[in-house]
Amino acid sequence: MKNRILKNEVTGIIRGAIAEDLGGFGDITSKYLFPDDLDSSCHIVCKEAGGAILSGLDIALFVFEEIDAGIKMERLKNDGDSLRSTEKICNISGAASSILKAERTCLNFIQHMSGIATLTSRFVKIASPYNIKIVDTRKTKPLLRKIEKYAVLCGGGYNHRFGLFDGILIKDNHIAAAGGVSRAVESIREKIPHTLKIEVEVKNPEELDEAINSKADIIMLDNMGPEEIKAAVKSVREERGAATKIEVSGNVTLRNLEAICTTGIDLISVGAITHSAPAIDFSLEFE
Amino acid sequence: MKNRILKNEVTGIIRGAIAEDLGGFGDITSKYLFPDDLDSSCHIVCKEAGGAILSGLDIALFVFEEIDAGIKMERLKNDGDSLRSTEKICNISGAASSILKAERTCLNFIQHMSGIATLTSRFVKIASPYNIKIVDTRKTKPLLRKIEKYAVLCGGGYNHRFGLFDGILIKDNHIAAAGGVSRAVESIREKIPHTLKIEVEVKNPEELDEAINSKADIIMLDNMGPEEIKAAVKSVREERGAATKIEVSGNVTLRNLEAICTTGIDLISVGAITHSAPAIDFSLEFE
Amino acid sequence: MKNRILKNEVTGIIRGAIAEDLGGFGDITSKYLFPDDLDSSCHIVCKEAGGAILSGLDIALFVFEEIDAGIKMERLKNDGDSLRSTEKICNISGAASSILKAERTCLNFIQHMSGIATLTSRFVKIASPYNIKIVDTRKTKPLLRKIEKYAVLCGGGYNHRFGLFDGILIKDNHIAAAGGVSRAVESIREKIPHTLKIEVEVKNPEELDEAINSKADIIMLDNMGPEEIKAAVKSVREERGAATKIEVSGNVTLRNLEAICTTGIDLISVGAITHSAPAIDFSLEFE
Amino acid sequence: MKNRILKNEVTGIIRGAIAEDLGGFGDITSKYLFPDDLDSSCHIVCKEAGGAILSGLDIALFVFEEIDAGIKMERLKNDGDSLRSTEKICNISGAASSILKAERTCLNFIQHMSGIATLTSRFVKIASPYNIKIVDTRKTKPLLRKIEKYAVLCGGGYNHRFGLFDGILIKDNHIAAAGGVSRAVESIREKIPHTLKIEVEVKNPEELDEAINSKADIIMLDNMGPEEIKAAVKSVREERGAATKIEVSGNVTLRNLEAICTTGIDLISVGAITHSAPAIDFSLEFE
Amino acid sequence: MKNRILKNEVTGIIRGAIAEDLGGFGDITSKYLFPDDLDSSCHIVCKEAGGAILSGLDIALFVFEEIDAGIKMERLKNDGDSLRSTEKICNISGAASSILKAERTCLNFIQHMSGIATLTSRFVKIASPYNIKIVDTRKTKPLLRKIEKYAVLCGGGYNHRFGLFDGILIKDNHIAAAGGVSRAVESIREKIPHTLKIEVEVKNPEELDEAINSKADIIMLDNMGPEEIKAAVKSVREERGAATKIEVSGNVTLRNLEAICTTGIDLISVGAITHSAPAIDFSLEFE
Amino acid sequence: MKNRILKNEVTGIIRGAIAEDLGGFGDITSKYLFPDDLDSSCHIVCKEAGGAILSGLDIALFVFEEIDAGIKMERLKNDGDSLRSTEKICNISGAASSILKAERTCLNFIQHMSGIATLTSRFVKIASPYNIKIVDTRKTKPLLRKIEKYAVLCGGGYNHRFGLFDGILIKDNHIAAAGGVSRAVESIREKIPHTLKIEVEVKNPEELDEAINSKADIIMLDNMGPEEIKAAVKSVREERGAATKIEVSGNVTLRNLEAICTTGIDLISVGAITHSAPAIDFSLEFE
Repeated sequence: MKNRILKNEVTGIIRGAIAEDLGGFGDITSKYLFPDDLDSSCHIVCKEAGGAILSGLDIALFVFEEIDAGIKMERLKNDGDSLRSTEKICNISGAASSILKAERTCLNFIQHMSGIATLTSRFVKIASPYNIKIVDTRKTKPLLRKIEKYAVLCGGGYNHRFGLFDGILIKDNHIAAAGGVSRAVESIREKIPHTLKIEVEVKNPEELDEAINSKADIIMLDNMGPEEIKAAVKSVREERGAATKIEVSGNVTLRNLEAICTTGIDLISVGAITHSAPAIDFSLEFE
Repeated sequence: MKNRILKNEVTGIIRGAIAEDLGGFGDITSKYLFPDDLDSSCHIVCKEAGGAILSGLDIALFVFEEIDAGIKMERLKNDGDSLRSTEKICNISGAASSILKAERTCLNFIQHMSGIATLTSRFVKIASPYNIKIVDTRKTKPLLRKIEKYAVLCGGGYNHRFGLFDGILIKDNHIAAAGGVSRAVESIREKIPHTLKIEVEVKNPEELDEAINSKADIIMLDNMGPEEIKAAVKSVREERGAATKIEVSGNVTLRNLEAICTTGIDLISVGAITHSAPAIDFSLEFE
Repeated sequence: MKNRILKNEVTGIIRGAIAEDLGGFGDITSKYLFPDDLDSSCHIVCKEAGGAILSGLDIALFVFEEIDAGIKMERLKNDGDSLRSTEKICNISGAASSILKAERTCLNFIQHMSGIATLTSRFVKIASPYNIKIVDTRKTKPLLRKIEKYAVLCGGGYNHRFGLFDGILIKDNHIAAAGGVSRAVESIREKIPHTLKIEVEVKNPEELDEAINSKADIIMLDNMGPEEIKAAVKSVREERGAATKIEVSGNVTLRNLEAICTTGIDLISVGAITHSAPAIDFSLEFE
Repeated sequence: MKNRILKNEVTGIIRGAIAEDLGGFGDITSKYLFPDDLDSSCHIVCKEAGGAILSGLDIALFVFEEIDAGIKMERLKNDGDSLRSTEKICNISGAASSILKAERTCLNFIQHMSGIATLTSRFVKIASPYNIKIVDTRKTKPLLRKIEKYAVLCGGGYNHRFGLFDGILIKDNHIAAAGGVSRAVESIREKIPHTLKIEVEVKNPEELDEAINSKADIIMLDNMGPEEIKAAVKSVREERGAATKIEVSGNVTLRNLEAICTTGIDLISVGAITHSAPAIDFSLEFE
Repeated sequence: MKNRILKNEVTGIIRGAIAEDLGGFGDITSKYLFPDDLDSSCHIVCKEAGGAILSGLDIALFVFEEIDAGIKMERLKNDGDSLRSTEKICNISGAASSILKAERTCLNFIQHMSGIATLTSRFVKIASPYNIKIVDTRKTKPLLRKIEKYAVLCGGGYNHRFGLFDGILIKDNHIAAAGGVSRAVESIREKIPHTLKIEVEVKNPEELDEAINSKADIIMLDNMGPEEIKAAVKSVREERGAATKIEVSGNVTLRNLEAICTTGIDLISVGAITHSAPAIDFSLEFE
Repeated sequence: MKNRILKNEVTGIIRGAIAEDLGGFGDITSKYLFPDDLDSSCHIVCKEAGGAILSGLDIALFVFEEIDAGIKMERLKNDGDSLRSTEKICNISGAASSILKAERTCLNFIQHMSGIATLTSRFVKIASPYNIKIVDTRKTKPLLRKIEKYAVLCGGGYNHRFGLFDGILIKDNHIAAAGGVSRAVESIREKIPHTLKIEVEVKNPEELDEAINSKADIIMLDNMGPEEIKAAVKSVREERGAATKIEVSGNVTLRNLEAICTTGIDLISVGAITHSAPAIDFSLEFE
């Protein structure tokens, strides 16, 4: 089952992006230079060295549809596919003025989403031999969380909670306000939808111990180095015999990732895959 | 006059970003752990090495205002300021549950916008001794063009056109459809608002010549190397004696920027400053 | 900590409800009969026999604020409070024409939300001595899920998942498509955010067995009678020694509730509390 | 001519209801369990004892259309039809994942609207032999007035004014502010669109007399018992010879309805048909 | 009681109008020329010869408020007032850049609404000595019906129905479809809210007769000359003794208005007051 | 290349206009008088004397499409065409109730936009022999700038800037704040997108001189008479030899237009073409 995004889930984003580019007067360059009946054929091609991961092609299709229902598009690749350099991802044909009107908006989606998918895949490639999942964070661009978290899936990563409303993460301020880890976990467990697990962020062995005692469902080891992490895993797994999921978070880079992967944890959350992924270069070329 | 963004210009973006994070149930972790009357004080601090450029602090203020009109915020820095490492940019105090509800959304704006401002400033630092302006492109994130182009200004850059509706850029497809550069320029000049200049993208000396002949207001040299650019500038300035503005575009990086700057051009447009700027790390810390 | 709803979480609902009532011409009766400077005092009173549970007073306040910032309102009760017959819940004073303009919209929120809170509280009163939680379902009115689920909390109930996006419920069609309970649970566990539990709906002892084997986090016993439920609980708790949460769903009424409560389960989900709660009668009375 | 609702009249409601259920991640259960190419057939069936009145089937169709244009739906019943127990109202076929995504939202519309139509029809059945119309009120759920008033028509009832802007109802506060019934009626008649009638709410014989004198178009007898109503009708019809329409309002139930119907009035407005109608049970069953 | 428009009734229109003018970059002229702390004082003045009727000043105030809450405005005139030439209608002071940002949008509201009010008042001046009301039509500008119908009130006119939903007007096509005037009137009377009157458009004495027979509440004489109108009035009033309201519609101009007023009718509806009113010239002048 | 407006550019305006007319209950007259299966044929015809210029027919088509996808429409004329008296512009056929529901909204677009196109064309007819362009202003109706500026193009006119964000116009207040014309022009030239020209409004020969000296791209002569204009043109063209575009603005009417045209200027901006154009009469006639 491939990753797919449905048009009715992104209609607002697509219309907003188009409106942003067309403004009040529309595409004043193309409008006055192209005869109404001029049709063209073109394709979109990836300009990067090989290994980029495609994400956003579904949305590209919706942008063209939204601007001109008469445009035809042939999909040559799917979201999640790895691309060779200069590989074509789709063919497009129809009114030249409509194609030019959609071009930049369409490419802006693909270049940004593929950037996230590609950076994610580089983390995944290192972590997956260790059976460790790379998960995203809430460090996304405003208004774009939906498509950025979708792009993470395309890159082989996994989603953490979507927002503050669909997952519990108890941090130091919560613990202080509640009067300790146990009281925080119990208090929140009593109130929240029973379908949600409780994750507790811990900074040292004492907090870790309390979190295990309070039967937290997930432990997040925050900003620890590989040695600290190893000790924490040992404490949870061997000393306490707990199967609690262990997530590592904070300052994880492509450089230190492998060291972290050897520690026996379950998940690594990485803000950089959504907040700092450089764009992948795509181009629309006329034939 | 400092760069400023007005609340009524970004209300929609702010509300959308907050809604994205709060969803249906709101902040279910904080809601059940904080008493209503617990007030806290905190500040936002830059975690990067020195030299990051701040952008988005105005918006951060609006996010807090929107979530809780009772929160107080003291501004310690302004958009456009250069930050030292671990420098505080603002103090915040008020209901702890409101602060936590706003935290991530607020930081997502600042980290992204400061990322763009900071990368822009690195290009500007190299180009400005040559009196060359760094300008942005339409390669922005969907829905975020307004705040991304604002961040470019904070970094010392300049804005190119906002979209397809407020500037003319004649490219090869337009030229082909119109039957030559001259016919394209004349045809478009006749139609568009007289307040807009006409920019023509050229790929070789022949197109450059035609563009000068047709009295294009701006010439864009597309994807040329420093030698080609120098020859083009010489042709325009010395041989033709034209004062036409010359813009360079395509594959400009921090590495090849200085070489390009020595060619005598007026502007360099750089897609990377908006599409590939890594986030700057900010953190909200309770006191 | 009291249940509270924040204005920025319901702004859209409030504005939509006001617009629905005022339409193009506004309140044409009051507009032409009241002088601009006529101020009045009034209060809102519950007209039901005692025992109704208040929900929606926060929203009532926002409706008045939205229509006229000059109206003053004194809160005499809080959401979640039990009301005596004819008990006053708030005092209001300000421009008479503004009060009449807000009256019906305000009351429509309170009467509907208090209806849900009150019916919920009747289920809760029976179930809570057994330490069983009453939880809601997705059987809510279109566009009103947020305020209806909030009203359930006011009545002492608990929320199930908000929608299809923040909880997993595997039903018979899913099981058939996946090729059995185990394969469904494993397949979904691999993909979803690790912060979510997996609930499986079972209809008979065989499915129950499979669900336990596959380590589902929650078992939903669908449309079973008390004897079947008892057998299921025994199977899970005694025979399998599993601590899996057990939820009962389907055809639960105030009449059969106590019998179900004696079976040793953890949660009962009741659609009727949101889809069939009769309104509680409130009235705005001038002084 | 059947009651019909057009898609462009409810697009906003339908999209809002779908968004509420799908949130950021969409239907995470079905998305990962169904292959893209799995098609299914199903139907919607009424689970109530006979006599329920259907309302909302048009909207159900729009929900499926909105989520997946490829879904096929065969209508077996129409809005306003009386249903036998377990009667099928439509057949549906198409992608299983799309059907499950639409299921709950679709049923929430039908169960709520049919609840209103069914309760309305029970009042109508008693009143119609007396040539008395059952009319609705503004006591509707926020944001849902349009579809709730449509459901009243499906049940054989009639609509009162939609809101404050399209009908005049002069109540005691208006009368007091204007200085008497006559002055209120004259003052308002002078100002309002001439296409609207003026209705006056009266509480006793004196007010009734004044209302007749001032040539009010409609008299609303508020909260009167059958004897008082009879006396009022006699006063209007026999003593004053007036053809003024007489509406009864307040505390009308299925129990006291017939007694009120014998009094010779024209209309009875009933808040309960919109604010307290229990849902009708419908189910989507796969084949 | 003066005509007033409330801010929450026009928020959407005001925000849309401001967004239209500010676009993506805001006011790029003023932004770069005014220091942030430059305050100015100015006033708005009417540049027409005397006799213009003011409408839209309330909205002007809201535009300034929306753009900058710090701007101060002193109201010197009210909507509905008659203005002398060069008369000041309000004083404004605050940040110069905010005033210039609001200027054009504010004036566009006032010049358009005062245009409608002024043209309306010229019709009213002729008709009112005959006790005839000038009423508007649905021939308004798209999206602006609310403020245009408000402007008609400011000019001394009256509102006809707002749209297709709050008034009945039976025209020739309806009559043909229903099989005659009587059947049309009876059929519609049975269905519609009892708060609405029924108006029938008639083109000749036969249709007029039928309309009276069917007890239509209002007769609209369509496109008749003064003699035909006189005959129709005589037929209704003297021959039939009916008090039915009589409205004249079609090709009414300031030139032929007085002749029509002598015929004894009740109302004249004039499309031109909303669809063809020239703007009144207002100017914002700095001091 | 004909002037065309795309549906996705006006969807919001069309839906808003339809909602305005249909409100909560829809078209209650037609709904109850037409059987569902009654189809009709009709056409739209221009009722003016010859010479009106059509604008808005594209939008009319979208209104029908939006209300009923089944309606068929045959275009007989195009936007920009000159119409003979009683000339048919399109044929329409489909459900009678849908046609009546769309009628007024559709005609309101065409009558208003054709009014603007027609008035524009009268100015253009006089100015075009002198090679002078008639351009619009920002004096448009709130929310309608997009379609009003489109209508100006249909009438043979040209667009000035769309709003404050896509063009520079330096007026007296700006000049005063900046400390002179030269400083204003230099200061703004340094900041704005290089794609925009700078226009300066001048009131006397001194300001004109400064504007030329500061190399403003366009000069606007504000409120000058023909003699003053001639002197200004002479000063610019002959004495200074500058090719700067010269625009005249202020108090231009059909009466004084020809005199102004003889002065040698390039453009005349006329507010009246958008703010005071009377509607052109169109009618939808059934066959």
